[in-house]
Amino acid sequence: MNKKLRVLSGIQPSGILHIGNYFGAMKQFVELQEENESFIFIADFHALTSVRDPNELRKNTLEVAINYLAVGLDPKKVFLFKQSDVPEVCELSWYLSTITPMGLLERCHSYKDKIAKGIAADHGLFAYPVLMAADILIYKSDIVPVGKDQKQHVEVARDIAIKFNNIYNKEVLKVPDIRIKDETSVVPGIDGQKMSKSYNNYISPFWDEKEIKKTIMRVVTDSTPVESPKDPDKCNVFALYKLMASKEDIEIMRNKYLNGGYGYGDAKKELLAKTLDYFAPIRKRYVELKNDISFVEKILKEGAEKARSEAINTIEEVRKTVGIK
Amino acid sequence: MNKKLRVLSGIQPSGILHIGNYFGAMKQFVELQEENESFIFIADFHALTSVRDPNELRKNTLEVAINYLAVGLDPKKVFLFKQSDVPEVCELSWYLSTITPMGLLERCHSYKDKIAKGIAADHGLFAYPVLMAADILIYKSDIVPVGKDQKQHVEVARDIAIKFNNIYNKEVLKVPDIRIKDETSVVPGIDGQKMSKSYNNYISPFWDEKEIKKTIMRVVTDSTPVESPKDPDKCNVFALYKLMASKEDIEIMRNKYLNGGYGYGDAKKELLAKTLDYFAPIRKRYVELKNDISFVEKILKEGAEKARSEAINTIEEVRKTVGIK
Repeated sequence: MNKKLRVLSGIQPSGILHIGNYFGAMKQFVELQEENESFIFIADFHALTSVRDPNELRKNTLEVAINYLAVGLDPKKVFLFKQSDVPEVCELSWYLSTITPMGLLERCHSYKDKIAKGIAADHGLFAYPVLMAADILIYKSDIVPVGKDQKQHVEVARDIAIKFNNIYNKEVLKVPDIRIKDETSVVPGIDGQKMSKSYNNYISPFWDEKEIKKTIMRVVTDSTPVESPKDPDKCNVFALYKLMASKEDIEIMRNKYLNGGYGYGDAKKELLAKTLDYFAPIRKRYVELKNDISFVEKILKEGAEKARSEAINTIEEVRKTVGIK
Repeated sequence: MNKKLRVLSGIQPSGILHIGNYFGAMKQFVELQEENESFIFIADFHALTSVRDPNELRKNTLEVAINYLAVGLDPKKVFLFKQSDVPEVCELSWYLSTITPMGLLERCHSYKDKIAKGIAADHGLFAYPVLMAADILIYKSDIVPVGKDQKQHVEVARDIAIKFNNIYNKEVLKVPDIRIKDETSVVPGIDGQKMSKSYNNYISPFWDEKEIKKTIMRVVTDSTPVESPKDPDKCNVFALYKLMASKEDIEIMRNKYLNGGYGYGDAKKELLAKTLDYFAPIRKRYVELKNDISFVEKILKEGAEKARSEAINTIEEVRKTVGIK
C-alpha cells in the first residue's frame, strides 16, 4: 500500500461562501479527501493584512469553517484548523526570512499588483510569501494545489526550502510539489462576470430561501421576448442551471430555450428549484452546524492539535539545525 | 514608593566580550540593575541574520551569558534570557508587520548601511526592526537604552506601537521611551581604533593570563626612545591604563611618561598588572561559571520563564484585539 501524500491547502476566511467557491474549489476538496492526507488551514494570520475588524475576522473564520464542513469536508479524513492555532509558523517564518533574498520577494507579482491597485504597502503584504512558505514547509507537505495566481508563491516556498537545506547542508525542509488547479470551469455571477464577493454578484447556497430567490430573480438576461427562441449558451441563468442539473434536465431546458414560448422568469424559477434541491443536504447540514458552534470549534481544535504536533516536530528540527537550543 | 521602571536591553551573542564592551556597556548594566527592573535578552534570533553555523551560535550565546554573569549581573535583580526562549515575539512580529508601512523599514539606515557594505540583502535584515519592535513591545518596556546607532529602530518601535493602538482604537501596546546611552568613553583597541571584534584589536578580560599579556605587548606605540619624555595623552597604553587605575596611579604613570626614562614596555607591564588586578574577581567568577554551565542554563531558563509569562499576557491581549481567538 502506498503512503498517502500530504496535501496542504489554505482558505481565506472571507466569510460566507458562494456557489462560485463551491464549484471552483470546495467540491474538489471534498472529492480529494479520500485520496490524500489533507491539511486545510483557514488563513486568519494572512487575513490580518486586510481585515482590521476583530469581530469580522472571528465571524468570517468560523463561517468558512462551517461552510466547508457543510459541503462535506470530513474531519475524520482531513485536518481542518486555523492558521493561528499553530503560531510556530511565525517562528519558522523568521528563520526563513534570514535566508530569503529581498529580490525573491520584490519579484512577487501579487504584492506588486496590490500596490498598483492602491492598497497600502504594508510589510505584512510584502512578507506574506515567507509566512506562506512557513505554512507549507512546517507540515512537510508533499503537494500544494493552488490557482495560477498563487503559483509564484509556492515557487518562492520551494526556493526558500532549497536554499535553507543548502546553507545548513542538511535535508531539513521538504521541497513541495506544485499542482495547478484546473480553473477552466469559471462560474458566472448574476451579472455574467466571474462570480466573486468583490463584484457583489454572488449567490450563496447558505442563504435562506428568500435571499436566494431574490438574487436569482436579479440574474441579468437579455430582452428577448417570452415567445421568441433564445440562445441558452448566452444566458447566465442557463449557465448556472447547467452546474447543478442532470444531463437530461439540461437537455430539457436547452430545448425550451430553443423552442421559444419560454421566458427567463420561467428559467429562473427552475434555477431556484434546482439550486434548493441540489444544495438541500448541504443547507440542512449548514443549519445544524450553525446551531452547534461548539462542535465546529471542537473540530477546529482537534485539527489544530494534529497540525501543531507536526509543526512542533519540524520547528524543533529547524531550531536544532540553526543553533537555537 | 515608586514602581520600578522596566528597562529592556538586547545583547548580541557575539561570543567572548572585551574590555571595550565592559567599559562601554556591561558596567552600566551592573550599575543600573539596582534602580530598575531590567529585562536583558541575548538576541539569538537576530544573530541568525549573520551567523549560519549552529555550533558557533550556541557557543556564543552561552559565552555572552557567562560573561555578563561574571561581571556582576545579578539574576536575582535582572531577568537574563535568550530571545528565542520567547518565540511569541515572532508571532507579535507578524501582527505588527501587517500594520507597518514598507516606507518605515525602507528608511532604516542600519539596513541601508549593511547593504552598502556588501552584506547580502536578506529579508531578515530588512524585517529586523519589526522583530526588534516586538521584542520591545511584548514586555511593555518603559525604557529602552540604546546606542545612537539603534535610536532609529526604537523610534520605529514607537511608531508601530502608536499606529497599532490607533488602528485598533485601544491602548494595547506601551509606547516606550528611548534613552540614548552615553558613549563618549570610547575604549581604544590595541591599534588605537575603537576596540571592536571586527577590527580584531581587542583584549578580553576572560582570556587566560598568557593571552592577555601577549596582546597587551602588541599595543601600538610610537617610536619615542626610552629615555625621552612621552605624551601620555597620545598613548594607547596610557588610555587603557586610565580605565582601570585609581586617580593617584594615573597621576604617577602620567609623571613617568612626562619625565622620560620610562619605556612603553614598562608601561605595558604596569597595564598588564592593573588589568589582571582590576578584573581578578570577574576572572575568578568567569572560571567558576565556565565550570558550572548547568547553573548558567538554569539562570537563563528562569529568566525566560519570567519573560515568557509577561510575553504571553501581551500576546493574548494582542490576539484578542486583532480578532485571533
